[in-house]
Amino acid sequence: MNKKNFTHLDKSKSPQSVDVSNKKASLRTASAQGIIKFNNKSFQKILNLKSKKGDIIGVAVIAGIMAAKKTSDLIPLCHNIPIDDVKIKILTQKSSNSFKLICSVKTFAKTGVEMEALTGVTIACLTIYDMCKSLDKKASVEEIKLLKKSGGKSGEFTT
Amino acid sequence: MNKKNFTHLDKSKSPQSVDVSNKKASLRTASAQGIIKFNNKSFQKILNLKSKKGDIIGVAVIAGIMAAKKTSDLIPLCHNIPIDDVKIKILTQKSSNSFKLICSVKTFAKTGVEMEALTGVTIACLTIYDMCKSLDKKASVEEIKLLKKSGGKSGEFTT
Amino acid sequence: MNKKNFTHLDKSKSPQSVDVSNKKASLRTASAQGIIKFNNKSFQKILNLKSKKGDIIGVAVIAGIMAAKKTSDLIPLCHNIPIDDVKIKILTQKSSNSFKLICSVKTFAKTGVEMEALTGVTIACLTIYDMCKSLDKKASVEEIKLLKKSGGKSGEFTT
Amino acid sequence: MNKKNFTHLDKSKSPQSVDVSNKKASLRTASAQGIIKFNNKSFQKILNLKSKKGDIIGVAVIAGIMAAKKTSDLIPLCHNIPIDDVKIKILTQKSSNSFKLICSVKTFAKTGVEMEALTGVTIACLTIYDMCKSLDKKASVEEIKLLKKSGGKSGEFTT
Amino acid sequence: MNKKNFTHLDKSKSPQSVDVSNKKASLRTASAQGIIKFNNKSFQKILNLKSKKGDIIGVAVIAGIMAAKKTSDLIPLCHNIPIDDVKIKILTQKSSNSFKLICSVKTFAKTGVEMEALTGVTIACLTIYDMCKSLDKKASVEEIKLLKKSGGKSGEFTT
Amino acid sequence: MNKKNFTHLDKSKSPQSVDVSNKKASLRTASAQGIIKFNNKSFQKILNLKSKKGDIIGVAVIAGIMAAKKTSDLIPLCHNIPIDDVKIKILTQKSSNSFKLICSVKTFAKTGVEMEALTGVTIACLTIYDMCKSLDKKASVEEIKLLKKSGGKSGEFTT
Repeated sequence: MNKKNFTHLDKSKSPQSVDVSNKKASLRTASAQGIIKFNNKSFQKILNLKSKKGDIIGVAVIAGIMAAKKTSDLIPLCHNIPIDDVKIKILTQKSSNSFKLICSVKTFAKTGVEMEALTGVTIACLTIYDMCKSLDKKASVEEIKLLKKSGGKSGEFTT
Repeated sequence: MNKKNFTHLDKSKSPQSVDVSNKKASLRTASAQGIIKFNNKSFQKILNLKSKKGDIIGVAVIAGIMAAKKTSDLIPLCHNIPIDDVKIKILTQKSSNSFKLICSVKTFAKTGVEMEALTGVTIACLTIYDMCKSLDKKASVEEIKLLKKSGGKSGEFTT
Repeated sequence: MNKKNFTHLDKSKSPQSVDVSNKKASLRTASAQGIIKFNNKSFQKILNLKSKKGDIIGVAVIAGIMAAKKTSDLIPLCHNIPIDDVKIKILTQKSSNSFKLICSVKTFAKTGVEMEALTGVTIACLTIYDMCKSLDKKASVEEIKLLKKSGGKSGEFTT
Repeated sequence: MNKKNFTHLDKSKSPQSVDVSNKKASLRTASAQGIIKFNNKSFQKILNLKSKKGDIIGVAVIAGIMAAKKTSDLIPLCHNIPIDDVKIKILTQKSSNSFKLICSVKTFAKTGVEMEALTGVTIACLTIYDMCKSLDKKASVEEIKLLKKSGGKSGEFTT
Repeated sequence: MNKKNFTHLDKSKSPQSVDVSNKKASLRTASAQGIIKFNNKSFQKILNLKSKKGDIIGVAVIAGIMAAKKTSDLIPLCHNIPIDDVKIKILTQKSSNSFKLICSVKTFAKTGVEMEALTGVTIACLTIYDMCKSLDKKASVEEIKLLKKSGGKSGEFTT
Repeated sequence: MNKKNFTHLDKSKSPQSVDVSNKKASLRTASAQGIIKFNNKSFQKILNLKSKKGDIIGVAVIAGIMAAKKTSDLIPLCHNIPIDDVKIKILTQKSSNSFKLICSVKTFAKTGVEMEALTGVTIACLTIYDMCKSLDKKASVEEIKLLKKSGGKSGEFTT
């Protein structure tokens, strides 16, 4: 069988969840990134604030972790699985007036956690937007993508 | 007062929700976009499928509408408000192997719906990723941003 | 315009939520019924229990009220609106070994509460099933339907 | 001990969850059905639509899958367990102006998935009602019942 | 009518939600407190940490705000209403090795926000417990109570 | 390593979830208590009611069980895990006009269920408050604390 099928569509092309009952549970990890960009003036204000208190970042991390746990409630065909770990890191990229966020998720389950990592990083980015939108409505979220995954039949993936 | 403050931080820079009890309810709208990009081969496969059944798109639209209604559960400092309308449009951009999604939200409330539009469009993009990730794990979500908003004290905003 | 259209489909027959931003808020009510039928032996056991403690019924009422409040989270195109009242009544129908449940909902909003009444009554019926399934797996839920609605442009409806 | 007890009631007849900590996890499956009936005129309109686009059906399938994953949030005494698969099939029954929906669920857990199958099929039926209620408010949902289950101590069950 | 009835029980003493459809919406506020007490050694460690980063407090504030918005999902007979503001303050009480938390909520609605204030303050206290339980499992939450409420027919209340 | 660290803070004192991917799943239990106190007059009214119908208690038990299942949605850094059992007992303490509630939770997982027991008991107490607040707004919730836990690396804990 060609692995590169639409596994979320059945033969009649209707949406379906993937039956994982025959899969073996194993350690699976995934990391995803997202970047939120500001104009220079806003970014400087946020950096000034961050050096003192870090609250914007703190709220975003919590929002991202909570969202990752809620992924199966948001992405219709995602399985609900126990999550062993969610970490969110936020890197300051001064040259581009942006923060790069990386969300890493682990589970021991029959299916991977790519969508959990992507959902976590995205909601964290949107939370930063929400915290700063009174300052800069034009901020954008960019380059949301899977960085790597491990575990399961499809094995390692790295960008 | 300078409008460009961090309204989500109090004087001691701790996170706070914005007190809207003195605001007047009014019609408020917001639109946001997001773009999901594939490699050419995957994009062609999706287009072939779409021309027949549209199921991937259909699932993404439903996921985005449901997520927009759940915004206050995801973005910590968002108010829970009744939503009058959520529309999600999906434009095929053949020249860039991508779909542009636009989510438009309306409410009659004391606070705006920017975060609802951004949350709706983002979860719709991630749902397309989920439906197609067996085909192309490297697809990315790009240029998530507010397109316009109307209503409320801060008035019109257009990119 | 013909009122009997699919208001949840747009011109291209894609699903959409109904834009209620131009509607006027008004008092709206709806009632829906559902019937859960048992075999005679199980029904007698439940009746014996009910005459003493009523706990099965009590759990079902709470489950139905909570589900009615969650309707917009379950039915994809339902609006999230504040609910003013949810009542669930349970009538014993000895001749047919069944309980008839009636859920009545009120709101002051731009859209009706038919789906809230139907969701409330259905989850209450399924909760009774859950509480009694160790006794009678063959119990069935029957005749779930809207009994009446009032308010809004489409006016009164009674079966 | 007589197996046909109210396992969801303790000795004093108060509601309780069932302690499954001593049970062994195993593959468990369940299927449930529900039927939604229209008047002939409405049913023909829906069929005409379905032959073209299938969107009503598509929305109902997604709603049912998402609801099945949320069962423990709706049915008070249901355990929250990882779900391995949810499938929803929709059969057109022309002779009775109705659709028969069948929801099949799989898990590898200490407790069965009857309630997940019943919740999934029911919310899918109610979603079809919601999508078509502007056309036919008198549509009813009928014969919601468990079709079969397998796995666990109580073993096979078939209607 | 005697105001001091069980408004959440009907004449047959069955639980019911309160019908607020005849009430007038008005500004309503409520504040509630909760206290979390540690042993002296743990409290000093937390204070040292707090003086530097405040992260424990920050997470608790976010958890409390999010929980207040979810109150109608947790307290079965609470109405779902739009919340205009949630503030959580945390006071350090050195003499008793404790933090006093105060949650203040505002709405413009037909029913009060006592339960929202109580739910917010309680989940914030439990979040502090969770963040510190590796240090001091014996910490306790004390004196959760309503401090004041205003608005609505029953008028002002102050402890 | 000193076990008594803040395991929910990383080296830079930012909040983090605990990575449990290397832990072994095992049977874990936890019990927590909470006490709700009334004035004497209200307490007598509630007792009179309780002797007849028990509905207040019944609603509180259901609310507590449902809340315990939702713990990971409320406490930001709690893992989402399958819960094997939740029991809530309510003891009448006539000498102090109070009810003592005890919530006991079991799981087979990589992490403990202290927060589930605490969340369950607390929401059950707040539900009793909600059911009785028309009678006695000054009722308070007291002495919420962990009673015991078993399982996992940190072993037995008893107050």
